[in-house]
Amino acid sequence: MEIVALAGGVGASKLLLGFSREMDPRALTVIVNTGDDLVLHGLAISPDLDIVTYTLAGAVNPKAGWGLRSDTFTALEILRRYGREHWFNLGDRDLATHIHRTALLRSGSTLSEATDAIRRAWGVAARILPMSDRPVPTLIRTEIGTIHFQEYLVKHRTELTVEEIIFDGVEEARPAPGVLEAIASAAGIVVCPSNPLISIGPILALPGVREALRNRRERVVAVCPIVGGKSLKGPSDKMLKQLRYDVTALGVARLYSDVVGTFIIDVQDAAQQQSIEALGIQVVVRATTMRTPADKERLARAVLGALHQRAQAGAAS
Amino acid sequence: MEIVALAGGVGASKLLLGFSREMDPRALTVIVNTGDDLVLHGLAISPDLDIVTYTLAGAVNPKAGWGLRSDTFTALEILRRYGREHWFNLGDRDLATHIHRTALLRSGSTLSEATDAIRRAWGVAARILPMSDRPVPTLIRTEIGTIHFQEYLVKHRTELTVEEIIFDGVEEARPAPGVLEAIASAAGIVVCPSNPLISIGPILALPGVREALRNRRERVVAVCPIVGGKSLKGPSDKMLKQLRYDVTALGVARLYSDVVGTFIIDVQDAAQQQSIEALGIQVVVRATTMRTPADKERLARAVLGALHQRAQAGAAS
Repeated sequence: MEIVALAGGVGASKLLLGFSREMDPRALTVIVNTGDDLVLHGLAISPDLDIVTYTLAGAVNPKAGWGLRSDTFTALEILRRYGREHWFNLGDRDLATHIHRTALLRSGSTLSEATDAIRRAWGVAARILPMSDRPVPTLIRTEIGTIHFQEYLVKHRTELTVEEIIFDGVEEARPAPGVLEAIASAAGIVVCPSNPLISIGPILALPGVREALRNRRERVVAVCPIVGGKSLKGPSDKMLKQLRYDVTALGVARLYSDVVGTFIIDVQDAAQQQSIEALGIQVVVRATTMRTPADKERLARAVLGALHQRAQAGAAS
Repeated sequence: MEIVALAGGVGASKLLLGFSREMDPRALTVIVNTGDDLVLHGLAISPDLDIVTYTLAGAVNPKAGWGLRSDTFTALEILRRYGREHWFNLGDRDLATHIHRTALLRSGSTLSEATDAIRRAWGVAARILPMSDRPVPTLIRTEIGTIHFQEYLVKHRTELTVEEIIFDGVEEARPAPGVLEAIASAAGIVVCPSNPLISIGPILALPGVREALRNRRERVVAVCPIVGGKSLKGPSDKMLKQLRYDVTALGVARLYSDVVGTFIIDVQDAAQQQSIEALGIQVVVRATTMRTPADKERLARAVLGALHQRAQAGAAS
């Protein structure tokens, strides 16, 4: 069964690791947010693509959830000596990825091609697609001005107030080759438990993606990233609140109601089941917090189970 | 007394370290060969500039004579995983220098400006000038074809036969800002004990440099890089032989006879003194092998002594 996953970074990668163990990873296509991408020190950095690739390769730093296992940060000290910006963590081994990607892009490769070369070098069997080959930087309007999402996240540690989220140039961008085709042909589509505003949001904002998902809505299963009113990971809760969305499973369900057929919410949020179902969304209640490998595999099985059920229902109707 | 030194890499940097201790380093200007420069993985690498800078900063790897002290090579392992060329050693901390230089060049800085920013970041008081702001790659014609000097040196470990040395584009290049001015105004000029063919040769080949030195010939002191028929460091002896030059102090003196007034040769080569003097070159015989800091300082004092003598002779005449 061909599965497509829409993914951000750390939260998504945990579930994807579960998938890669619970299904043939060659049947998995991951469409990854690139709104977080930035150019720093002349290097093309794609944080979410790297998190997904490193995680599926079993090479991710398990404590941080990003970067490479056992990496060192000595180059960064020297970059700091040179007066360069050093708020963005760049490990020594990780730097090689950015150098390689930058060299590939400069020599004419697309981001899709560079991404594919990198995942193959790591022996990752799943297909990894950037959401677009064109940069679509996520900008955050705050009280100090409009800044790149990574500056908001890393430099300012999410301590600013989010007034607006801008997907810069998204109208002119196109989904990367294979993105719309994968969504159209997959047996099941998963929206990973990533930040709905700045991880899944940029993917949905690309011309044609939202429509493609709407057409397959019955096959789309999302895992809620908000549990008990808090983010599983990252600033989703804070951003939702500041932009006046409900910081609940229901609030996320409303953002996804046109594209998601099934929503997996945490047992803590079981009381919201009826309100979500009122949006025309099927609800599955599960333990969704992923701490151990077993947690990830269990949640992946739950998602796959929901997808199978939907596929059978689709075949029967 | 303002001193200008023409320098290649490791051999030169030892003497330069001696100078920086035996004189006010702020009165020292080093003109560095950039014929070895290359672009690898999209990064602008200037091996000789970095050797000189790191050495004068006291940060060079003391065993190798190049690279940074205590550097690690983990990024290189990952670049290798990506199928990139990995014959050129790139330390993790050293990579930061190449990244910084590349970023500066891409943002519009000249190589001179980038070099100055880097030496200042390392607290180097001497002025360091690239020989030119324009790339002048040294190419080596061999039995397998014409290759970059670094490929000959590092990838093929000097095991190919040198048929011709080409300073690619040198006719169109110009000395970097300050190079000709420094030569014209210095109280003394030192040709460091570097490879005469591929370290000093590219500097001399730049339009105007040879003429500028000829005009100051009486103030130019060279230290012979050949001792007892062998290179102090690197493939000078092999290259001289393959190109049918004499692999002796006299052979080097012939290459420099129009631009050098005084030649410092090793005690082992004292028998060649008369033949070299027959070229119209004053000869100073000294121990020139530099193993310890004291060796470097002693040779630096000998060079400074010869320069002082020439300066006084010039003033008296």
